Amino acid sequence: MAKAAKANAIVGQSGGPTGVINASLVGVIEEVKKHSQIGDLYGAVHAVSGIVKDQFINLKKVSAKTLELVAASPSSALGSSRDKPDEAYCANILEVFKKRNVRFFYYIGGNDSANTCYIINTIAQKSGYDLHAWHVPKTVDNDLLVTDHCPGFGTAAKFVACALMGDDLDNRALPGVKIDVIMGRNAGFLTAAAALGKRKDDDGPHLVYLPERPVSMDKFLADVNAVYTKLGRCVIAVSEGICDTDGVIWTKKIVSSSEKDAHGNVQLSGTGALADFLAGQVKNSLKIKRVRADTFGYLQRSFAGLQSPVDVKEARLCGRQAVKYSVTLQSGSVAMKRLKGAKYAIELFATELSSVAEKTKSLPNEYINSEGNGVTDAFVKYAFPLTGGLPKTEYLGNYPRV
Amino acid sequence: MAKAAKANAIVGQSGGPTGVINASLVGVIEEVKKHSQIGDLYGAVHAVSGIVKDQFINLKKVSAKTLELVAASPSSALGSSRDKPDEAYCANILEVFKKRNVRFFYYIGGNDSANTCYIINTIAQKSGYDLHAWHVPKTVDNDLLVTDHCPGFGTAAKFVACALMGDDLDNRALPGVKIDVIMGRNAGFLTAAAALGKRKDDDGPHLVYLPERPVSMDKFLADVNAVYTKLGRCVIAVSEGICDTDGVIWTKKIVSSSEKDAHGNVQLSGTGALADFLAGQVKNSLKIKRVRADTFGYLQRSFAGLQSPVDVKEARLCGRQAVKYSVTLQSGSVAMKRLKGAKYAIELFATELSSVAEKTKSLPNEYINSEGNGVTDAFVKYAFPLTGGLPKTEYLGNYPRV
Repeated sequence: MAKAAKANAIVGQSGGPTGVINASLVGVIEEVKKHSQIGDLYGAVHAVSGIVKDQFINLKKVSAKTLELVAASPSSALGSSRDKPDEAYCANILEVFKKRNVRFFYYIGGNDSANTCYIINTIAQKSGYDLHAWHVPKTVDNDLLVTDHCPGFGTAAKFVACALMGDDLDNRALPGVKIDVIMGRNAGFLTAAAALGKRKDDDGPHLVYLPERPVSMDKFLADVNAVYTKLGRCVIAVSEGICDTDGVIWTKKIVSSSEKDAHGNVQLSGTGALADFLAGQVKNSLKIKRVRADTFGYLQRSFAGLQSPVDVKEARLCGRQAVKYSVTLQSGSVAMKRLKGAKYAIELFATELSSVAEKTKSLPNEYINSEGNGVTDAFVKYAFPLTGGLPKTEYLGNYPRV
Repeated sequence: MAKAAKANAIVGQSGGPTGVINASLVGVIEEVKKHSQIGDLYGAVHAVSGIVKDQFINLKKVSAKTLELVAASPSSALGSSRDKPDEAYCANILEVFKKRNVRFFYYIGGNDSANTCYIINTIAQKSGYDLHAWHVPKTVDNDLLVTDHCPGFGTAAKFVACALMGDDLDNRALPGVKIDVIMGRNAGFLTAAAALGKRKDDDGPHLVYLPERPVSMDKFLADVNAVYTKLGRCVIAVSEGICDTDGVIWTKKIVSSSEKDAHGNVQLSGTGALADFLAGQVKNSLKIKRVRADTFGYLQRSFAGLQSPVDVKEARLCGRQAVKYSVTLQSGSVAMKRLKGAKYAIELFATELSSVAEKTKSLPNEYINSEGNGVTDAFVKYAFPLTGGLPKTEYLGNYPRV
């Protein structure tokens, strides 16, 4: 790259929003201002779809006060896109880069976004266009490779943990079976986070079902029955990606059974279908009267005002670091390494785009109990610090009777 | 009552838990300690069902530190009950009172709990037993008569408002139609609270459907279409108690259509059914591709760590006040009056048990817009202070293009 010449930068936010993807955006913006070799910073409106339509806003003109509000807000402040650009799409992107003299590209997203970065970077290199393409990690699923964890996960994990803490207390007050369906079709990190608020032996969730551990309906019902018999209640966290032992996910089974329905009830493929299906199974097979089920849905990624302070700080650091790397290094993805020691701490490092692109990580075996229906202490040790702490709660029902 | 003799007290928590019903409990406990005419304070484990089973804990023995944790915790720390005691049931309760020399009874709950208080009080008076029976209001539905609002509503309203603020930002990032189904089968206060975070003209929720305003499917779809055509997106808050123009609630219609289903799919009567049904209608009739729906469920009443500071303070005050009243007055329910003036303030007063028992309040007409699909500024002025404030958020997609 011609170091002397000033060039412009583009930043975009891609895929499903998170609670802290805006903190990464603000990290990019504030760091860009420190580097004189970067001229304008264009924010791509709705990610790659905005780039090819040449729709940008001037991020250097946004006030510091507004930026702080943005950093504290969930969702993607620039707008997002579900487009998965192929080579032809990326070639169009590169044309826009050339037209606007863009030599720095920051893309905040998951493994698809890393792949977009990778394709654009490859095309740019082939055509001899000097481009610095950097990926900033984000995902509530925590499923990116290389990095210890992903910005966005800690905040979503905090939401899920607080939800289960409250739900468990609710279930103590009015006992029965409660089923909560949690996001994460392929990776069980977020569902596992349901257990992060457990403190006492009989705290829920008492059962946690992850996409990494297929379970038969018989085993599921036997598990629920065992807990209910012992405690008189049972709180269950289930991943939306829970599979039967034949490897077919339960939601798919429910949908295909509904296809035979002459009434055209589209509801069965809807968001509440898995929760209601499992609740129906428990009610009918175990003859338990009080069975309730909730599906947490978008709240997990978009709830306002509940960021993990650790997560928001790291997300911002990752955004800043991408810019720092970009002024000396050609391309890569920002990743986090956890430092050894009693106190939680991380350091950032750069990894190849290809090591993150299009790949996903599952919940490691050592985080899942031997029964396949709960998490281990090792998981809690790994994930708890990312929430930035959880509220303390108490109940009285277990006090001695007088 | 024989003022000289020391008598004991019982406190219980009834019905669906809320985010601050424990604050009311702690208010009762701390105030009881100040009155020498009250001896032991028994906490009824699982409300009336614990009373008739003689299951109590000694609340004077719980440490101040534990009480502060309890006050900050959602759900009912003593356990709750859905029992609706009749005269025979209440006669059994009175026997336990006599056995334990209980002359003070504090019952925290909704209109059913006020009725329980009323029945017990009536029986006690008839039999010449000196009892001071006091009801402490709680409900997320905000549907009690006489009082300006109910402890529990502000915290639930805060949850719903934060949820919609985040969901609206999510919908800006990835536009489409989003439907959120909110608690409150008969009263629309909590669904109306979905609008409390709106600041800009195009902020969602763009449509709010309340149980007080029946709506036909045609009108619903026309409303959604109009917003979607104008903004390219639409966020909708729907009460679980939404009715068709014939007065039949939509969930009932969905259930009865599912009864014809030969596959025995119990899911249609489940928690997600209304959300999925409405999403299916929008998708099929309006040919809109991206339609999503969530049902907030128990999170609205039980989420940990998200109390409204105003609500928790008032709930505690109501608990204290019930005890203060009880040492001089015979029976009643604690109520709140809003004081006139620029700054939000309330004062407490006592009302008859019979004025609260078994009755419910609907969302007043002046809080609903003329179209029947949104709330008025008067509602926001009424309800916003009860949340104790909402997070500030920002997005950038509306900045000028460059």
